[in-house]
Amino acid sequence: MDEQGRYETMASLKGKDILHGNQFSKKEIDSIMKVASDFEKELKKKDSLSLLKGKILATLFFEPSTRTRLSFETAMQRLAGGVISMASAESSSAAKGETVADTARTVSQYADVIVIRHPRIGSAKEAADAAPIPVINAGDGAGQHPTQALLDIYTIRKEQGSLKNLVVSMVGDLKYGRTVHALVELLSLSQAKLYFVSPSTLRMPEEITSNLRGKGVEVVETENLMEAASKSDLLYMTRIQKERFEDLSEYERVKGSFIVNGEFLKKLKKKITILHPLPRVDEISQDVDFYPGAAYFRQVRNGVFVRMALLAMILGKR
Amino acid sequence: MDEQGRYETMASLKGKDILHGNQFSKKEIDSIMKVASDFEKELKKKDSLSLLKGKILATLFFEPSTRTRLSFETAMQRLAGGVISMASAESSSAAKGETVADTARTVSQYADVIVIRHPRIGSAKEAADAAPIPVINAGDGAGQHPTQALLDIYTIRKEQGSLKNLVVSMVGDLKYGRTVHALVELLSLSQAKLYFVSPSTLRMPEEITSNLRGKGVEVVETENLMEAASKSDLLYMTRIQKERFEDLSEYERVKGSFIVNGEFLKKLKKKITILHPLPRVDEISQDVDFYPGAAYFRQVRNGVFVRMALLAMILGKR
Amino acid sequence: MDEQGRYETMASLKGKDILHGNQFSKKEIDSIMKVASDFEKELKKKDSLSLLKGKILATLFFEPSTRTRLSFETAMQRLAGGVISMASAESSSAAKGETVADTARTVSQYADVIVIRHPRIGSAKEAADAAPIPVINAGDGAGQHPTQALLDIYTIRKEQGSLKNLVVSMVGDLKYGRTVHALVELLSLSQAKLYFVSPSTLRMPEEITSNLRGKGVEVVETENLMEAASKSDLLYMTRIQKERFEDLSEYERVKGSFIVNGEFLKKLKKKITILHPLPRVDEISQDVDFYPGAAYFRQVRNGVFVRMALLAMILGKR
Repeated sequence: MDEQGRYETMASLKGKDILHGNQFSKKEIDSIMKVASDFEKELKKKDSLSLLKGKILATLFFEPSTRTRLSFETAMQRLAGGVISMASAESSSAAKGETVADTARTVSQYADVIVIRHPRIGSAKEAADAAPIPVINAGDGAGQHPTQALLDIYTIRKEQGSLKNLVVSMVGDLKYGRTVHALVELLSLSQAKLYFVSPSTLRMPEEITSNLRGKGVEVVETENLMEAASKSDLLYMTRIQKERFEDLSEYERVKGSFIVNGEFLKKLKKKITILHPLPRVDEISQDVDFYPGAAYFRQVRNGVFVRMALLAMILGKR
Repeated sequence: MDEQGRYETMASLKGKDILHGNQFSKKEIDSIMKVASDFEKELKKKDSLSLLKGKILATLFFEPSTRTRLSFETAMQRLAGGVISMASAESSSAAKGETVADTARTVSQYADVIVIRHPRIGSAKEAADAAPIPVINAGDGAGQHPTQALLDIYTIRKEQGSLKNLVVSMVGDLKYGRTVHALVELLSLSQAKLYFVSPSTLRMPEEITSNLRGKGVEVVETENLMEAASKSDLLYMTRIQKERFEDLSEYERVKGSFIVNGEFLKKLKKKITILHPLPRVDEISQDVDFYPGAAYFRQVRNGVFVRMALLAMILGKR
Repeated sequence: MDEQGRYETMASLKGKDILHGNQFSKKEIDSIMKVASDFEKELKKKDSLSLLKGKILATLFFEPSTRTRLSFETAMQRLAGGVISMASAESSSAAKGETVADTARTVSQYADVIVIRHPRIGSAKEAADAAPIPVINAGDGAGQHPTQALLDIYTIRKEQGSLKNLVVSMVGDLKYGRTVHALVELLSLSQAKLYFVSPSTLRMPEEITSNLRGKGVEVVETENLMEAASKSDLLYMTRIQKERFEDLSEYERVKGSFIVNGEFLKKLKKKITILHPLPRVDEISQDVDFYPGAAYFRQVRNGVFVRMALLAMILGKR
């Protein structure tokens, strides 16, 4: 198939908002993965591409997140685009009582695309409804963080070759972890078997679990990390946050049960992949970093390629 | 007239500071409007111009203002210039006791032009006196904010065709609102009739009112919004800030009297234009947004063109 | 010697970290000075060079420093590179308990070079050990700030023609001043005679003084500024910070003894150079600014050239 033909089979995201992990069709996900992979190859040959020259990205972080903000700002600049940035809400009109909708409409007079993080669920949708330009949700409280889910999928494909028939353990805080909520939606498209490994107080919301089962996904809930991990091709670790616990002794007890270290690794499948949305604290010990399947920093890098793909696609350049 | 001839009639702002709303001659204002209008047309054809490639703008915001900072940073980048930014004073040498003059002299070793916002009146002038490069005042406390006034003028010309013989109501906090102080200076150049509509505690400073009357401008002061609005071609709304009131019940009473909503609009001139420097809180209700004369978000966009014009002109590129 | 030959004699810093003031050989310092001087000349002809186009610098300031951060960001942009920036630690993953090493490894997935400032001594080294890309230490608490020392050397060479046989007074807080610690290391390579002028509670650490003497450097410690200054070719002034004193009356007494003003200047050598890493508070009065030897703002500008040289060299472009 010639180049023209190949791109005719691609989904278009031109002008679209990226708000929710389950907004994508299978074809759209495949297209995003393809474009991200193309960019990854091109960045091996040169430092940046000129695809978005003259375009401006606004990053609006009402809740700070250096990692996510810098990832998007890198993606934009690797495509030769410019960036305007609000790194924290203190310095915003929100402090003067402005609605998210008004802020989004204002900033859409400056920029060509907005990335927003906000502590309140639904806020990214409000911004998208108000703004005439595309809006990407980079986390809306306990809600969604769809680009994280996409970069996770991209990483799993690269590390494991395919998503088909994978056994995946999601580990840690499954109740509040928006990352895992969005990821399981995407994994449900490809016959994964899922272990949900968490303390009982931080279990995956019943609504998500039953929805998955309704789609025919095999789901096992357990507090036993070893049992799940030993059968898994992939461990998706998350941070258990102290502030989720009323009883600190309960936190200390629980935290210790969900730690992966070098000793633990030896009992798992040889080719297991370990992911983590980062930052990690104690749940993955430093000695794991040197294991070939420890993919969490490659995962960070993949985030740049996936976000480049999204920016280029919603701006109609791919 | 050929292109050469046309530009010979333009005022030059090369190397000048932009400090005060009334520093401009009529010819200078016309030139700024002309350049801004040219840029607006050019940006319809492409995403950015290369006029300031290699130049660097420093934005020094000792008092945060996301809106104004991002507007300037957008303007610079739409002209292909670079930006270095201090978004809040916390992270500045000011915390170590440095004077504004020293900060400005330091930053002028890095950048080609400085935009400064500072809570103290007169600070932008101090920066300009110390720095060998042009300085733009983006608000010095209760003092001036001249680029806001220029973008207001640009917007009024676009929305109403001309400034000539307009009836304008300035509404809300006229005592502390530096935006309206600068704007009335510029409006006084073109035979506007002005209504000053405010609670008695937030009236336009007597000095400004009598100065306007001295120039022959017709000024009416009132607390009756409907009376003024029904005769006006333009409503310039501003936010009434709670923190200006010692007596909160007085605030609640006053606030309610200066609100424009859809019902109110019906009683006004058909072609009325509504402006607001934003952010708004309750003084313009959401249903007004869809009215054709609601120009406050177009006003935001115009700010980019006007700031592009100022940056290009003081750097000698237009 | 032809151009090729000239560059063959240059030291390479490609891929290296810049962590400590005494990591450099004499040849490396000469090469940095040469490249900085070339850039200074080239920037007189145009606004920026395109040497680092497509490259990205990450500035990670866990402790805010507008001056140093903007200097690096300017240097990168004058070479056409891009910047991603964390201006303060509040907005960082550090707040979530991430180690400096993990932050550095994460950010090295985005950027081509990292500049880090952190309040803890040794932190820049940790970042450098963890990151696969070059790391520049822009201050690690009471530790090192090597680029300040290099720009000081660059400035002294320019102002005095050479470093050879200079008599230098280092004045103020010599105990905690990391700037002077790194600078004396570099000065020790060129037969300077050093006066250390400080209150007894803020003397140069004994370890540094005896190390210098061991290398044959002539060192005089005194509390008498006039005595030292009157014999000096160069005064290197530093700020005495109130927070170093338990007894505030002691602070007030001490502060007054280390002030340079116009009257004082008259008693010194005609061609004396006055440097200060800035920000200054009272230790150099404003009337000194207009003296030809007052080089502290030129020193700021030189910082851009030296940092351009370092960025270009460690990225293998010079």
